[in-house]
Amino acid sequence: MSDKAWGGRFDQEPSALAAQFSQSVSVDQRLALQDIRGSQAHARMLAANGIISASDGNAIVQGLDEIRTRIERGEMKWDPAREDVHMNVEAELTERIGAAGARLHTARSRNDQVATDMRLWTREACFDTIAKIDQFLSVLCTRAFEHVDVLMPGYTHLQRAQPVRLAHHLLAWGEMLERDRGRLYDAAQRMNECPLGSGALAATTFAIDRAATARELGFARPAQNSLDATGDRDFLVEAVAALANCAVHLSRISEELVLWSSQEFGFVQMSDAFTTGSSMMPQKKNPDMAELVRGKTGRVVGSLVTLIVLLKGLPLAYNRDLQEDKEPVFDAFDTVGASLRVLAGAIDTAAFKADAMRRALREGFLDATEIADYLAAKGVPFRDAHHVAGRLVARAIRSGKVLMELTLAELREENGAFDADLFAALDPETIVERRNIVGGPARAQVRLQIEALRDRLIARGFSLPGVEFA
Amino acid sequence: MSDKAWGGRFDQEPSALAAQFSQSVSVDQRLALQDIRGSQAHARMLAANGIISASDGNAIVQGLDEIRTRIERGEMKWDPAREDVHMNVEAELTERIGAAGARLHTARSRNDQVATDMRLWTREACFDTIAKIDQFLSVLCTRAFEHVDVLMPGYTHLQRAQPVRLAHHLLAWGEMLERDRGRLYDAAQRMNECPLGSGALAATTFAIDRAATARELGFARPAQNSLDATGDRDFLVEAVAALANCAVHLSRISEELVLWSSQEFGFVQMSDAFTTGSSMMPQKKNPDMAELVRGKTGRVVGSLVTLIVLLKGLPLAYNRDLQEDKEPVFDAFDTVGASLRVLAGAIDTAAFKADAMRRALREGFLDATEIADYLAAKGVPFRDAHHVAGRLVARAIRSGKVLMELTLAELREENGAFDADLFAALDPETIVERRNIVGGPARAQVRLQIEALRDRLIARGFSLPGVEFA
Amino acid sequence: MSDKAWGGRFDQEPSALAAQFSQSVSVDQRLALQDIRGSQAHARMLAANGIISASDGNAIVQGLDEIRTRIERGEMKWDPAREDVHMNVEAELTERIGAAGARLHTARSRNDQVATDMRLWTREACFDTIAKIDQFLSVLCTRAFEHVDVLMPGYTHLQRAQPVRLAHHLLAWGEMLERDRGRLYDAAQRMNECPLGSGALAATTFAIDRAATARELGFARPAQNSLDATGDRDFLVEAVAALANCAVHLSRISEELVLWSSQEFGFVQMSDAFTTGSSMMPQKKNPDMAELVRGKTGRVVGSLVTLIVLLKGLPLAYNRDLQEDKEPVFDAFDTVGASLRVLAGAIDTAAFKADAMRRALREGFLDATEIADYLAAKGVPFRDAHHVAGRLVARAIRSGKVLMELTLAELREENGAFDADLFAALDPETIVERRNIVGGPARAQVRLQIEALRDRLIARGFSLPGVEFA
Amino acid sequence: MSDKAWGGRFDQEPSALAAQFSQSVSVDQRLALQDIRGSQAHARMLAANGIISASDGNAIVQGLDEIRTRIERGEMKWDPAREDVHMNVEAELTERIGAAGARLHTARSRNDQVATDMRLWTREACFDTIAKIDQFLSVLCTRAFEHVDVLMPGYTHLQRAQPVRLAHHLLAWGEMLERDRGRLYDAAQRMNECPLGSGALAATTFAIDRAATARELGFARPAQNSLDATGDRDFLVEAVAALANCAVHLSRISEELVLWSSQEFGFVQMSDAFTTGSSMMPQKKNPDMAELVRGKTGRVVGSLVTLIVLLKGLPLAYNRDLQEDKEPVFDAFDTVGASLRVLAGAIDTAAFKADAMRRALREGFLDATEIADYLAAKGVPFRDAHHVAGRLVARAIRSGKVLMELTLAELREENGAFDADLFAALDPETIVERRNIVGGPARAQVRLQIEALRDRLIARGFSLPGVEFA
Repeated sequence: MSDKAWGGRFDQEPSALAAQFSQSVSVDQRLALQDIRGSQAHARMLAANGIISASDGNAIVQGLDEIRTRIERGEMKWDPAREDVHMNVEAELTERIGAAGARLHTARSRNDQVATDMRLWTREACFDTIAKIDQFLSVLCTRAFEHVDVLMPGYTHLQRAQPVRLAHHLLAWGEMLERDRGRLYDAAQRMNECPLGSGALAATTFAIDRAATARELGFARPAQNSLDATGDRDFLVEAVAALANCAVHLSRISEELVLWSSQEFGFVQMSDAFTTGSSMMPQKKNPDMAELVRGKTGRVVGSLVTLIVLLKGLPLAYNRDLQEDKEPVFDAFDTVGASLRVLAGAIDTAAFKADAMRRALREGFLDATEIADYLAAKGVPFRDAHHVAGRLVARAIRSGKVLMELTLAELREENGAFDADLFAALDPETIVERRNIVGGPARAQVRLQIEALRDRLIARGFSLPGVEFA
Repeated sequence: MSDKAWGGRFDQEPSALAAQFSQSVSVDQRLALQDIRGSQAHARMLAANGIISASDGNAIVQGLDEIRTRIERGEMKWDPAREDVHMNVEAELTERIGAAGARLHTARSRNDQVATDMRLWTREACFDTIAKIDQFLSVLCTRAFEHVDVLMPGYTHLQRAQPVRLAHHLLAWGEMLERDRGRLYDAAQRMNECPLGSGALAATTFAIDRAATARELGFARPAQNSLDATGDRDFLVEAVAALANCAVHLSRISEELVLWSSQEFGFVQMSDAFTTGSSMMPQKKNPDMAELVRGKTGRVVGSLVTLIVLLKGLPLAYNRDLQEDKEPVFDAFDTVGASLRVLAGAIDTAAFKADAMRRALREGFLDATEIADYLAAKGVPFRDAHHVAGRLVARAIRSGKVLMELTLAELREENGAFDADLFAALDPETIVERRNIVGGPARAQVRLQIEALRDRLIARGFSLPGVEFA
Repeated sequence: MSDKAWGGRFDQEPSALAAQFSQSVSVDQRLALQDIRGSQAHARMLAANGIISASDGNAIVQGLDEIRTRIERGEMKWDPAREDVHMNVEAELTERIGAAGARLHTARSRNDQVATDMRLWTREACFDTIAKIDQFLSVLCTRAFEHVDVLMPGYTHLQRAQPVRLAHHLLAWGEMLERDRGRLYDAAQRMNECPLGSGALAATTFAIDRAATARELGFARPAQNSLDATGDRDFLVEAVAALANCAVHLSRISEELVLWSSQEFGFVQMSDAFTTGSSMMPQKKNPDMAELVRGKTGRVVGSLVTLIVLLKGLPLAYNRDLQEDKEPVFDAFDTVGASLRVLAGAIDTAAFKADAMRRALREGFLDATEIADYLAAKGVPFRDAHHVAGRLVARAIRSGKVLMELTLAELREENGAFDADLFAALDPETIVERRNIVGGPARAQVRLQIEALRDRLIARGFSLPGVEFA
Repeated sequence: MSDKAWGGRFDQEPSALAAQFSQSVSVDQRLALQDIRGSQAHARMLAANGIISASDGNAIVQGLDEIRTRIERGEMKWDPAREDVHMNVEAELTERIGAAGARLHTARSRNDQVATDMRLWTREACFDTIAKIDQFLSVLCTRAFEHVDVLMPGYTHLQRAQPVRLAHHLLAWGEMLERDRGRLYDAAQRMNECPLGSGALAATTFAIDRAATARELGFARPAQNSLDATGDRDFLVEAVAALANCAVHLSRISEELVLWSSQEFGFVQMSDAFTTGSSMMPQKKNPDMAELVRGKTGRVVGSLVTLIVLLKGLPLAYNRDLQEDKEPVFDAFDTVGASLRVLAGAIDTAAFKADAMRRALREGFLDATEIADYLAAKGVPFRDAHHVAGRLVARAIRSGKVLMELTLAELREENGAFDADLFAALDPETIVERRNIVGGPARAQVRLQIEALRDRLIARGFSLPGVEFA
């Protein structure tokens, strides 16, 4: 008799080519523990409802426990001839416990089985990624706390624009990741319905208790439509889209770390543990981890597109195309998870260079806005004030000065409203401290944000004892 | 003097080429009403906090009201030389009310202005799309109610698999859209923070009241980090990803409508109002609307990719690249909105062909599972029962029969457990009714699902008086 | 001393996390044979130009030969601690031949080394895929030849439109693949420049002979700019874009095979070797191979997007992001290669059902165009003729007839130009044969196309002895 | 009677919603001139072959000439009720010349008509883009010529690596664009087959002369398969993939211009004509054009994905989905064309800052490779030499020196092979000039490359009189 679950009607074996092409166990063996959990819940429910005998039920649950142990020990032999993880586990079970093993598949299909496994796996992966984001946030929180007094240029268009605190910049990264966290959480909630019992497409004739299996597997409720539960994979698109958003954020953070690591900026020195050198140029300390994270954005976005293209235009319910849903999902979670850890480590161990940042603040006319604001505060319409400031910048450039070095006389040539109190207003610390509103870079505001982040992290089970303002 | 807001430092005008390339008013004029609302909230707050005079505040609010009226009447002249919607509105305002107009821009930058406008617009667009989804759902609910007694083949691999109810199939579409609705809702919640007051990147020195503007504009709170608020657009990625998921769903529904409209299936006749013919082949009644909706999936996915590629690797905070965020967002909402309406209209007016569905149920051995289940119920291990059913199908094909036409003797040649009670079990209605568990196709289950959907829609303000089971 | 090529300046080892994250040998070991060929060419050139000694050169070449043998036998131990394929091979070489091994890297960098390896690999992969396309084309050619007399409905909008020959349809697939072939060929030509000698970014001070290494490695010439040669990967985007076009074609062919395999169409019976069954529904013979091929389109498109996102916005020259270029390229070639083979096998062994196609031709009013053409030939303006034909279709539907069954009297009620000679014109064979122009479905045209394809394939080294018209 | 071409069979008008959704004239009117050219070629051929009368043929050609004039003058009224450009032109023609106009559509379908129009348009657009690339190349050639003596740091990992010539860097951009040009040229060649005569899907019964229309429209030959010619759009994917590759190149060039424009780098000063300022920060001179070009990469990639998703899984032949092919193609060509022009203008007018580049060369240890090479030339194995150089860099950093400032004694502490001739070897000009091999940065090599580019451009019709080395 054929090994294949569906062999009854066939005269010949699938060609080796087709068998190799269509096997999935090399990929979906990663679902093995979820598959076993699902099968055990199914077997318990079947027994509890008299669909299989109690002894069959026990034998199945125990047999699966043994298989799990084998898998965890790396002793399981995955056989591509048995196609997928489901058939491998079931065949192994039947070898162990005999006919009872074959009864496990009563009132079930591989279609609802794999849909259940993927939801279990992906739900866990969401929470695992959330934990990694929180770890990243705790690094940001700590580093922001440590550098709350370090000023740096804030940029727009990669032009020095206005001074901010380094902590304010690090907290901006934190805001981005906090939203990524929220998206993964929402995705995990939305996928939290149990497909088990949906059968191949139209449920089953057995009087199964779907609420019981859903409950045992930690789902909020059974999926409400068997065609939809076996035929849709939108929950994977949602999760991977959240990961893509996160990957884009990580690419932006990485871009900044690469910039800051350059000799031109010099704002950060990555630790040796998180940089590499060059085989040809001994002076290089390359920010490779940040570059790799930035580059890996591509594969996360690629995985998202893979899933979408895969689903486009498929009729209901299950189609074999759906077998292709696993690798992009596994790879996207692996990639973002590893990127989060590596980048958090890199930031945790990096040395920020306050001196270089301070030097950068001296040049670049970051105080020009202050001049415009100064004039506006004296009643000059803002657009006019802006023009005056612009002309002063041009004047300073022509004479090789910074704005602070212009004389009051020179200033008054452009506009009569200037007074000696201007100069105090142009100190970076003053500039930053005057921006003392919600979301602004003033110390009090940044402190509030650090404390809020710390308190969120504590509520999530983290401990940040050092983050305590005097 | 130059029209440009930033003209002060420049010796020469941007070349015509660059001006044409960088103007955005042809696109972002669509934000005009949001821009005006944001500006009015800002002006009221400035006046309330004594940053501008009360009379300036009033003049601004009133002037903007007049401009809104002009825009709504289509009388506004949008001038590309004024770059964008913000400068066009402000220039128009200043022409109307003089110097007070120039004071509107106090304590504000185009960077926080456009971030605020985009959030207002996109939040509204999410709720508008949600309303269209609900409209679609109400069509599905009604049509499912009308066809609760119509049986059809359920498919996997586009092979007839097991009988289901047409209503069950329509409700599967409803489940898909219900989740799309949830994603848009979550996206709208997450973007519900007000960037106004974040300035160019580092807030402002003016003692503005960010909570007040946030409140007036209906936001849950001010955004908490000025660099993030002006430099990130992940909320657009999230919203468009939700739309892409929805578009994929619509492509799947459309694929089925195209299939069902074929002569081969013949399950549906689209109304004349939602089909077109051929210039060369007079017999054609093409399901063009479904095809167009399916085709338009591409542009929604394209918009998602556009946004992601745009954001990848950008350093903080605002970069001019972000100007390119608007068209993909506008186009994605327009496309999905129109697709929802057209497809709902097409389904609402389509004639489903119960006869053709019934004919399709007679052939295709959709009762083969019943035979396997029948044997399993008699204690035959499921995989064995499955093999028996497979052999019977092969036998029936060889003799040109359907399973119902095999004799008891023939059946028993394959397995001794068969009895005369088998034949009653093979009627499609019986098959469907035996699948009477949560999420299954039995009438009672489908009724529950229709009523649940109806009640959700009623709770959202819809009226479905006809959907009432006897 | 550290194993790392760049260890000189570092005080501490990269963290295990970073090492795991940044190692690439698990992926790029696939370049090993290309790496060895490149290194041997480099060593020979170095020796020929006196940069290393002849004996060093010989030792290197021989040592690499031995390593190749180890690799081919699967005996090579790839060590992640040695980062990548280049360092693994070089370390192994140095262990074997001592100091001479360390001299191999003279006048070379990993940056030009990997760029060379990737071009060698991808160029070969292009030609390998071309061979698979040709194999596919030879299947199409043979099957078209066998079925030149089988008529089937041609479809637009998935509506039966006009009769064509099955061979004509199969040849349409051939045209699509022929263009894919051309794209891969062009890509292979354009990437046919040798980066070796470009160094890390700025060539090398050694007086190497780049023309010699280019020649030995089969490249048309050395790459002309060292920054470009080490920093760009557009040749990968081009090759994978060609593969994506091909994958889309395969998805379209697969879609048709899935449709044709349905009970509704019944145009094809896939062989048992290329279908699978259902674990729950014993009657199913699922077109899984076609579904999988269709589904795998997603990952090829995903790989294309991965590469593009990866490259977007990178400054020159080499950045570590580029390490991520390999998996999408390997996967795209593997996927398309396997899909071509499996789909060719499926088509080669499929049974086309001429009877079902003939039945489909009888219904669906595929002769309606003939009526319009008939009238146009009698001088009725085409658009009017079209309207008459449309009204006749409507009339036939109302009376449950096909057009052939309308009486001359009925026809003349719609237009007086009809005559008895109309009826002969409505036979499908007649309809097809009247379309006897270049690119049309008439037998003579299809024969010409089959012969042209056969002759192209023969010129490419294939033998198709049976494809010979009497 | 209805305006619709296909109205004969319909009882009711398409709903306004559906009409709005399915009209395409707002987009495809851009094909009007191609449509007219195709129609004129078709009419001439019909008349030449006696399918329509000579006088009808003349009337059609003349009528279409008049319509072209109207269109060129902007006087054409495009009516959405007439669906598309084809019906608009034909209806306008029939209004002008009566019944003869209706005969134009003999032996033609909108399916082959639009396929022909799109090929004509896209082929022209490819050559138009090629011309813009050549224009860009001529700017690069000129600027490289002007700056052949300017040295700058070459970067890897955004770390200063080795000195190169600015001209070498500009020429690297040129190599990238040269390949983009080749791809567009190949795409234009491959699409150069004429679909006209393929009818709706199965050619036509009229004895048309497809070779004649192909020839008149400048195509290499008629398309060889009517199903393929009307149902495939792979030529658009190929063209837009070439544009995406080009857009990625432009994003990389833009990234560098943004970097170089920063105060940190200071390598370039964009001209006022190609920068803008800030509404809030008067000192800003933002590299907006480069940022916009970088941002617009997204939409080109999005267009590529749009097309691919659109085509995925479509059965042959024409499906209405294909109507959606136009906007992504138009937008991709428009975007890349404008980006090429703007970026060429920006580079043409930019001031490169040789002083800043020279300052950057002094720091960053770009001469470290020389030390390694120096030792290697003295027989030290390269990897060892590399380690010595690395240690010297570490030593220099610790003592706050550059390598040049280390004493011979200090050098010899690390390795005895150092001699006084080392110091001359560390001058940037020397370093660059020693890299005098094909593709390297030495002046002679760069000169060869500039001359080769100049000569290619001259062969393409450009005049670069100033680019002449003494």
